[in-house]
Amino acid sequence: MSKYAFGVDIGGTTVKMGLFDTEGNVLDKWEIPTVKDNGGEKILPDVANSICAKMAEKKLTKEDVVGIGVGAPGAVDDHGTMVGGAVNLGWGVLNIPEEINKVINIPVKAANDANVAALGEMWQGGGKGHSNMVAVTLGTGVGGGIIVDGKILTGATGAGGEIGHIHIDDNETEVCGCKKKGCLEQYASATGIVRLAKRRLAKDEKASVLRSQEISAKTVFDAVKANDEVAIEIANQFGDYLGRGLAAVACVVNPEVFVIGGGVSKAGEILLSYVKPAFEKYVFTPCKGAEFALATLGNDAGIFGAAALILK
Amino acid sequence: MSKYAFGVDIGGTTVKMGLFDTEGNVLDKWEIPTVKDNGGEKILPDVANSICAKMAEKKLTKEDVVGIGVGAPGAVDDHGTMVGGAVNLGWGVLNIPEEINKVINIPVKAANDANVAALGEMWQGGGKGHSNMVAVTLGTGVGGGIIVDGKILTGATGAGGEIGHIHIDDNETEVCGCKKKGCLEQYASATGIVRLAKRRLAKDEKASVLRSQEISAKTVFDAVKANDEVAIEIANQFGDYLGRGLAAVACVVNPEVFVIGGGVSKAGEILLSYVKPAFEKYVFTPCKGAEFALATLGNDAGIFGAAALILK
Repeated sequence: MSKYAFGVDIGGTTVKMGLFDTEGNVLDKWEIPTVKDNGGEKILPDVANSICAKMAEKKLTKEDVVGIGVGAPGAVDDHGTMVGGAVNLGWGVLNIPEEINKVINIPVKAANDANVAALGEMWQGGGKGHSNMVAVTLGTGVGGGIIVDGKILTGATGAGGEIGHIHIDDNETEVCGCKKKGCLEQYASATGIVRLAKRRLAKDEKASVLRSQEISAKTVFDAVKANDEVAIEIANQFGDYLGRGLAAVACVVNPEVFVIGGGVSKAGEILLSYVKPAFEKYVFTPCKGAEFALATLGNDAGIFGAAALILK
Repeated sequence: MSKYAFGVDIGGTTVKMGLFDTEGNVLDKWEIPTVKDNGGEKILPDVANSICAKMAEKKLTKEDVVGIGVGAPGAVDDHGTMVGGAVNLGWGVLNIPEEINKVINIPVKAANDANVAALGEMWQGGGKGHSNMVAVTLGTGVGGGIIVDGKILTGATGAGGEIGHIHIDDNETEVCGCKKKGCLEQYASATGIVRLAKRRLAKDEKASVLRSQEISAKTVFDAVKANDEVAIEIANQFGDYLGRGLAAVACVVNPEVFVIGGGVSKAGEILLSYVKPAFEKYVFTPCKGAEFALATLGNDAGIFGAAALILK
């Protein structure tokens, strides 16, 4: 009886890999370098060979393995084809299962890496026990992954869950990475928080520890924890923007839980204390019961979610 | 071989019913009154008996019928239970398939009526050929129904697709039916358009045919068609609000198509010409390809969608 699955998370620098049992426990984790030469032609053979080596090491036969799940940085269709290629990897359009099956004949499923990470958080992370979830990644940008009835919502062009680009402020003068103005990402990402902080500090001369140090999402939330009044104002602004954005999301997909991850979420529970009240202020009452949780899998969310493509 | 299905749309005044072949053609349509006495206890037996009568009339056996689909006004779970009852019908919590099966033993599936109507538009209406769709109903309020990969997105508490309550304007002073301020519904519904019109007309004395007639969504769009400048301003405002709301929706579920229905949509294609440019102004570029179409099934969307619960 098949008892194991592999989870593969292909990044621009390394490929993270994990061996899982069908209960969702990770039995082994390792990484291989992402070799991008010649249009990244070696990446998937390297993945397949690494899996073969791990199977030999663990004395697993093909019959022991249910399948291989893969998260990749780009839009992936239901057949595992990278429909727009993957610029970061040098890939043009290619079919991930086919490429892996040239080396080893085990069932393969593939999906977009951000969506796969969301699935991982639902399966074994901050969203465990739920099947309708929105993962919110607050990093350099604001990303999202939407899980409906336990399945990834991909959308027509793979842009399901791109919640960072919800238009949220008509008065914005600076341009977002997407070339529009006033996107949620301009306020709720790590760089967005820095922008909010600089604007607030420029407004007047009010004393703040932020005036004597480098400003980052981390220093802002550290200052909040130290009861710095200016930092608290900034956190309130951040919370208002994010709460309003997530309230809009809730009116659309009505999730059971929002799972907040990414670098900014390292601030911890205090972050949620600024987001939840704003969310509740703006959200449609029947959607108000949505829980808020922090992501717990960190950089492993991708391999967990990839395994979940097979095991869930 | 089973060749037919029934679609049932339970409303507060009448129950609409249809007999469909498996190709999605409606072979017969009829209505029965909704008898709400004694907690609406007769409604589902009446439905079942009406189906039995129609089967006798058409000489159909149980073996000829794949199933009965039902749309009902309230939150319905995956087992066909009205989890919160249905105030409009006098119902408390009840299981629709069980009640119908007391009279006739044919498979029954049930879902929320607005979502079922969305499914109907996808199956045989304005969204035909698509499987990722957002139905937008512009009536007294603004409703929505979201279809992902051909299935209704219900959400955690049945509030999936309640897009009328996306917060869209911080400066609103009047209160929405949901008790918050600044919901999309306050601008893009039939009553919202009247509010926008009255506000615009009060702003100055500019000539408009709207000053000499009752103001409604219909008279506003009739005036737009007659090139009334004030009416065109109002339509632009309406379009900006709705376009901005739908752009937010697109960032979440990335649909292939928006299908616009409800009383306001009777204005026709001209309505879309005010919504699309605003949508494109605000939407995240990868979601920009979403098409806009008018709903085509009108009041029959419910019976079509109910049949689709069985036949899709």
